[in-house]
Amino acid sequence: MSITITAFERSPDGGKGLARDTRVRWALEEAGLAYEVRLVPFRAMKEAEHLALHPFGQIPTYEEGDLVLFETGSIVFHIAETHAGLLPADANARARTITWMFAALNTVEPPILDLGTARLLEGDKPWHAERLPLVQDRIRTRLTQLAHRLGDAEWLDGAFTAGDLLMVSVLLRLRSSGILDEYPTLAAYVARGEARPAYQRAFAAQLAVNAKPAAG
Amino acid sequence: MSITITAFERSPDGGKGLARDTRVRWALEEAGLAYEVRLVPFRAMKEAEHLALHPFGQIPTYEEGDLVLFETGSIVFHIAETHAGLLPADANARARTITWMFAALNTVEPPILDLGTARLLEGDKPWHAERLPLVQDRIRTRLTQLAHRLGDAEWLDGAFTAGDLLMVSVLLRLRSSGILDEYPTLAAYVARGEARPAYQRAFAAQLAVNAKPAAG
Repeated sequence: MSITITAFERSPDGGKGLARDTRVRWALEEAGLAYEVRLVPFRAMKEAEHLALHPFGQIPTYEEGDLVLFETGSIVFHIAETHAGLLPADANARARTITWMFAALNTVEPPILDLGTARLLEGDKPWHAERLPLVQDRIRTRLTQLAHRLGDAEWLDGAFTAGDLLMVSVLLRLRSSGILDEYPTLAAYVARGEARPAYQRAFAAQLAVNAKPAAG
Repeated sequence: MSITITAFERSPDGGKGLARDTRVRWALEEAGLAYEVRLVPFRAMKEAEHLALHPFGQIPTYEEGDLVLFETGSIVFHIAETHAGLLPADANARARTITWMFAALNTVEPPILDLGTARLLEGDKPWHAERLPLVQDRIRTRLTQLAHRLGDAEWLDGAFTAGDLLMVSVLLRLRSSGILDEYPTLAAYVARGEARPAYQRAFAAQLAVNAKPAAG
């Protein structure tokens, strides 16, 4: 069955690969799956046709025959569960991989997203400059703990898994802040993720969409 | 194999059932599983012994033989995957349930947690009163979308699933704010979750720990 995902017609990051379709593209590339992409303009994100696929009006979505999924974590898990390469076969290692998937999205990403929210939605507020260090320190708390657990290992738990795919993707959002560079082992971990051929193909595919000159 | 989870020795909510061990207790009760609870004092949360189980120094954790898990979403999923009652058997319905699990924790809960963070960590800041409505409106955006998708259905996708368990648990955190009452269908959805016998048992079990008079 053919797979179709949605992505921004034009990503707000201008092709840095930080929109969530890159995570799904990466998982599809790791699994060696072909896929189609339907680009969604901003004006259509909150309209009925797209909301039927994604109740929160975001991208990506995933369509495969009768199946419609949203939520990047769940799409990556579906790909990982139905194809080799992203989930260990051993039952305990598999459960731990799923733990890291949730940890990436539910424990590490929220303070990182708060930094983006502070800049995008509250950057013009009188409290922005004074509040920013509080937001940044909440990120540092998580990164310190994550770096402690990773130690000098290559990946979070044995071989590369969907847990690493999501954790690397989450940490990539920090690069422009400079905070990631305060944690050399995490910066190296992210670089290992980016060096994977499947990530390279996913990045190039989203860049081909987002680096196009604006129409007209 | 016996199951042991960790919980706060004394929950910051004083027994309202909002600490995350209640979610895991609820899943265990839905699955009809016996479990032990090891209570962790605050002073021990960030110490090496607990960090070996949970790298981010939180509760709950889950131990079953050689398996150690953290992250509530992953623990609930492990219980759901290995026992009947929380995940549909049909492959597509199962994948959609997992989507709702991630949606609860990754899309609906973060703005709700931001409200708690604003009150607990920034309640004494000069910007608190002016910033609070921004945080509350981000919650309303999500609740409006969620209420639209739920419509007049009993649960999010057919029968009660682990997706509902997590979504109800996330929404419960809003009750004291009054925001949930602005969405009568969501308030009724939460009440349906709370009325389940398994939830009642989970709630009573955490209350038995947290409502005890302080020692000494």
